[in-house]
Formats: sequence, C-alpha cells, structure tokens
Amino acid sequence: LPRGDCSLSRLLRRLLSARRSLEICLFAFSSPQLGRAVQLLHRRGVRVRVVTDAQYMGLQGSQIGLLRHAGIQVRHDQENGYMHHKFAIVDRRMLITGSLNWTTQAIQTNRENVLVVEDAEYVKPFLDEFERIWEEYNPIHYRFF
Amino acid sequence: LPRGDCSLSRLLRRLLSARRSLEICLFAFSSPQLGRAVQLLHRRGVRVRVVTDAQYMGLQGSQIGLLRHAGIQVRHDQENGYMHHKFAIVDRRMLITGSLNWTTQAIQTNRENVLVVEDAEYVKPFLDEFERIWEEYNPIHYRFF
Repeated sequence: LPRGDCSLSRLLRRLLSARRSLEICLFAFSSPQLGRAVQLLHRRGVRVRVVTDAQYMGLQGSQIGLLRHAGIQVRHDQENGYMHHKFAIVDRRMLITGSLNWTTQAIQTNRENVLVVEDAEYVKPFLDEFERIWEEYNPIHYRFF
Repeated sequence: LPRGDCSLSRLLRRLLSARRSLEICLFAFSSPQLGRAVQLLHRRGVRVRVVTDAQYMGLQGSQIGLLRHAGIQVRHDQENGYMHHKFAIVDRRMLITGSLNWTTQAIQTNRENVLVVEDAEYVKPFLDEFERIWEEYNPIHYRFF
C-alpha cells in the first residue's frame, strides 16, 4: 500500500528471491527497474515466462521488447478484451498480486495495492490460470487473417 | 477467474451478503447490475461508502452519479495519479480484491482475477487503507484553484 521507492524495493526483493521459476502475467510492464530484475533472474537460470496484453505491449516504454530480446519467453493474448491480470508467481509458491501494473506511474504516483500470499489455496488457482493462459496463447494457436 | 455471468453472479452474491457495512474502493465503476446491488444495500440500511478516481468517475456510463443521487456517500481523489484500487470490504470481515474494475467490459470480456479473503491479517491493511483514503479525500480537504 505505501507508494514510491519503498514499495518498489519490497517488490524487487520478493522477485529477486526466485531460485527456480518466475511466472509473470501483466497487463502493462514498463518499469525499467523491474525489467532489469527480470532479466537478471533469467541470466541466473531462473525459468521466466511472461504473459502480457497485446494492445499494451507495443506502447512506448514497454519492457516486453527488451525481455524478448534478452531471450525471455513472452506470450500475449489475441483477443479484443484486455489481459488485465497483474500477478507474478515466484518458485510456484509465492503469489504477488493486486492492482499494480509494473509501470513507473503506478509505482510512484497511483494508489495501488499488492498482496503477497504463500497459502497454496490462493496460489494454486493463479498457477492454474497461468498455465491455462500460457497454453491458450501459444503461438501455434494464433489466428492470421 | 471465470469470465462473464458466472463471475458476476458470484460477486453479486458476496456483496448482497452485507448486513452492516460495505466499503468500495474502485478505479472504475460502470456495471449497472453492480450499481443496482449497491443501491439495494443502501436502501436496506447497510452503511455504504464509495471511493473512486476523479478522472474516471465523470466518464459516460459511470455509476457514480447514480449512487450519489441515491444518497450514497462517495469521495474521490484529487491527485494526478490514479486511485487505482479495485477492492470492496463486506461487514469489515470479507475482502474482495483483484484486477477487476466493476465494468461490463471487465466482467464480460477481459481476463481478470478476483480474490475473496476473510483472514483478518489480509483484510486489516485494506480496511486501514480505506479509512486513510476516506479521511484524505474528505471534501473539507479539497483544494480549489
């Protein structure tokens, strides 16, 4: 709930605790600091997978191109609706979710909330949703007109 | 996580279980069904308080004007940033939070999540945040230029 650098550093600390896997499912991802953290985890050998929204990912400042360039797997929706989730899962046991998109405006300026949950009963539905989306957004299913 | 009428009816059921109080803290509120449910609770004598975002509340389709017209107390931010929360608290014990704004597009079309939590350790920070915002957005503090 606190804004600014304090909430950013807490979020970074949670993310950088990942040792095996990181699933990210974000409507908007443009924070350079969080982008660098995700790239660092990828270089450390953590399995990083990112799902994002097709409309937002092409906007200026989006980190998605940089993540792909670094070799990180990214998939996006191909629907009219928004892929509006804002969650991440660390090592399949820690869920980070809330109203916060990973953008500088959201971190510095908005009123936002971030919940960190480790109870399996809450983490499991988000893991299941991630795997469902990951398969649904597999490029082999893309439609071309 | 499921979309459409199923998730709407589940959300309605949770809200309509309110007997004493309902705090709503929403970036965007334009769903007519949810608007009617909130008005019904107000008429039943539930203490309803709404916090919303100043930029969004004037948009076409917003329910905020109707809620105010019905006599429900609404306060809004007066900041540049967004009041981006999307949560409600029923009877000070059930937290409903996630990525979902209460709009028809979000309910019908987007990929969204809604968490329902009754553990006090999670509910308390959201209640505290609501009371902090409620005071901060008290009209007696509005600045006029």
